[in-house]
Amino acid sequence: MDQAVPVIVLLTDFGLGDPYVGQMKGVLANSAPRARVVDLSHGVEPYRVAQAAFFLRASAEYFPPGSIFVCVVDPGVGSERKMVLAQCGQSFFLAPDNGLLSLLLSTTKEDSRLFDVSPAVAPASATFHGRDLFTPLAARLAAGEKPEELGHKLDPAALVRGNWAEPRTEGGSIIASVLHADRFGNLVLNLSAASWSPRLPVGGQVRVQSGAGRSMGFGKPGPSRHAARVVTHYAELAPNELGILVGSQGYMELALNQASAAKSLGLGLEAEVTLELPAGSR
Amino acid sequence: MDQAVPVIVLLTDFGLGDPYVGQMKGVLANSAPRARVVDLSHGVEPYRVAQAAFFLRASAEYFPPGSIFVCVVDPGVGSERKMVLAQCGQSFFLAPDNGLLSLLLSTTKEDSRLFDVSPAVAPASATFHGRDLFTPLAARLAAGEKPEELGHKLDPAALVRGNWAEPRTEGGSIIASVLHADRFGNLVLNLSAASWSPRLPVGGQVRVQSGAGRSMGFGKPGPSRHAARVVTHYAELAPNELGILVGSQGYMELALNQASAAKSLGLGLEAEVTLELPAGSR
Amino acid sequence: MDQAVPVIVLLTDFGLGDPYVGQMKGVLANSAPRARVVDLSHGVEPYRVAQAAFFLRASAEYFPPGSIFVCVVDPGVGSERKMVLAQCGQSFFLAPDNGLLSLLLSTTKEDSRLFDVSPAVAPASATFHGRDLFTPLAARLAAGEKPEELGHKLDPAALVRGNWAEPRTEGGSIIASVLHADRFGNLVLNLSAASWSPRLPVGGQVRVQSGAGRSMGFGKPGPSRHAARVVTHYAELAPNELGILVGSQGYMELALNQASAAKSLGLGLEAEVTLELPAGSR
Repeated sequence: MDQAVPVIVLLTDFGLGDPYVGQMKGVLANSAPRARVVDLSHGVEPYRVAQAAFFLRASAEYFPPGSIFVCVVDPGVGSERKMVLAQCGQSFFLAPDNGLLSLLLSTTKEDSRLFDVSPAVAPASATFHGRDLFTPLAARLAAGEKPEELGHKLDPAALVRGNWAEPRTEGGSIIASVLHADRFGNLVLNLSAASWSPRLPVGGQVRVQSGAGRSMGFGKPGPSRHAARVVTHYAELAPNELGILVGSQGYMELALNQASAAKSLGLGLEAEVTLELPAGSR
Repeated sequence: MDQAVPVIVLLTDFGLGDPYVGQMKGVLANSAPRARVVDLSHGVEPYRVAQAAFFLRASAEYFPPGSIFVCVVDPGVGSERKMVLAQCGQSFFLAPDNGLLSLLLSTTKEDSRLFDVSPAVAPASATFHGRDLFTPLAARLAAGEKPEELGHKLDPAALVRGNWAEPRTEGGSIIASVLHADRFGNLVLNLSAASWSPRLPVGGQVRVQSGAGRSMGFGKPGPSRHAARVVTHYAELAPNELGILVGSQGYMELALNQASAAKSLGLGLEAEVTLELPAGSR
Repeated sequence: MDQAVPVIVLLTDFGLGDPYVGQMKGVLANSAPRARVVDLSHGVEPYRVAQAAFFLRASAEYFPPGSIFVCVVDPGVGSERKMVLAQCGQSFFLAPDNGLLSLLLSTTKEDSRLFDVSPAVAPASATFHGRDLFTPLAARLAAGEKPEELGHKLDPAALVRGNWAEPRTEGGSIIASVLHADRFGNLVLNLSAASWSPRLPVGGQVRVQSGAGRSMGFGKPGPSRHAARVVTHYAELAPNELGILVGSQGYMELALNQASAAKSLGLGLEAEVTLELPAGSR
């Protein structure tokens, strides 16, 4: 029998400097020796569930059907929060019930089912559920166990939802927030391309105002205004010209050409950004 | 014949920015094409043997029996230090003879044997023994060669031992040191849970004094005193309350809830910490 | 039929914090499920083609013949630059046509052929050619397609070449530049060991002058002079003694013993360094 190799995908805020991800992979080498283990990212900022939800939403579609995602960004570890398993199409998603899965589940076109896989008894390790609880569940799925064997069905309406997923509109303005500032300084906004690119026609201008929200220490944040041109490629932008475009992650991005919009605007993760749309598109 | 896939585990201070780990994996793709290669961590601080010894001690048990660990933190590369191979139970551990293996070997319950696998002739590359000497030895073990074929037996008493493994006690105080400050700012102390948690009963208080020792630049180190409550989970701690608990790595940790104890205390790797125990447990 | 497992090697400036490398691996898990995917490095500084060219040149020989390298450092993404594929011996190298492959191709002894694999039609994603164009080409090569099926032959003379590959000489001095500052602070110069070590005999001294060029923020750059001793191992150097040696990457390196030459000299990537050779070797 030629069975497909199960793919187990890891997404955490553990970083790669500590031995934590290595220990999860040790557990998998032991308990899912045939699986192909792929790192989606371990660079989620500590405890930033919204960023992890975005990483997952932007990435899940690139993995094979049947993949098993282990998503551990878990500020509530050791508290009463549930552990959940979603089956979405043929793929599986394990995570704490803190909103991490809600962006994916609220936007997927696949059929999905939800399970509570919280352990019936208190866990052995008080602090490392990624290694001691989530990873063994992934190994059981990789071995062919069914979600029903791992927990009981949960009403999707009971899932904890993030409140960061949706921008607000006020008059002719969109009040968005930064889902992610990438290595190149591109600022991914919580404006899905599908919903928002029609209101941001290529060749147009928007006024960008920042000020509220947290900065990541890239510079002194303060209210400031910038014009941004709607383009299709980074390479269309002149030096130091701010652009807004449909990014590769399926969301609108603020960007400079070969320079950091995050630094230039003094903005970072979860910062609030107001976009004044051109009058015609309001 | 269905042989198990050999697992080769890499632990270094090389980081992932340079091409060094990639070159080791290239050598393995060439010489151990069937092996599963797993990164334990490459985030050991440059030259910090004690931190690597802790990573290995905390992690080895999670990997399958028969795993081959390649551990390269090697401040003495190019000097006369030996290269050693330990067989511990069914698993293998390759490392420079600088104390990296001593914490594991002094605490394991498995039978262990030690070999000197230093090359008989001067090595080709003066500076990269990880790629040019250690990795090929791992590939030979993965191919089924026996330790006896790689070197000659060594008296375990001859192994270089780290002096950082043991805390001191003075009156009612324990003078411990920081084995690791993790990404979340948790400070792992050289107090094994097995030995020390009985003296730190949950619900009690300890006084923590820092001051001596190196800092990692998290803040200005200086003598300071803090109370820490002994808890079982991070989530039990109030905001800004310092806790001490049995961590997931098998050692006592100083921690805050969703904040960095390392930053708050101004402490980092190899810093000295004095714990005054409550009178009843002295 | 027992076919060899194809090896796909990734080299980018994407870092590991973002989900970009994870998405490329998702595409490969889908389209090249049998392949062994190896990270050479994702730590190339953003847009630094010369550094990537060096990483590739220093590393390619350690991978098995037949490996497929996907090299994406691409400041011109979205512009008119070509996408190229080089076959060099049995191995394949995909990259944007910006000089990334030129150091390898100009120094290899293997026969090489060059192809233009730019897409005939405009790409779906404006910004992420690594995931959407380069990775699928690698999967096609892994599935056994021939270079001729992926694009049309290109005159090797048409390949864009980097101008950073060659040092200049002026009188008794060599004007070199820093190809890479590694995690340990070693400064790799653009002086191949094969060409330059004969002019830098072990035991000799050179005078090192820095000043021009960029710094990486390690300190205030400014003209400064240092003596460096030509040695064979880091361990030969006294504390704080600057050395120059044949490094493990096939190039001359400036180094200290267990300390950072980059910090000590205030130099970083692409900095210019003047070496005054001893009179006898001019």
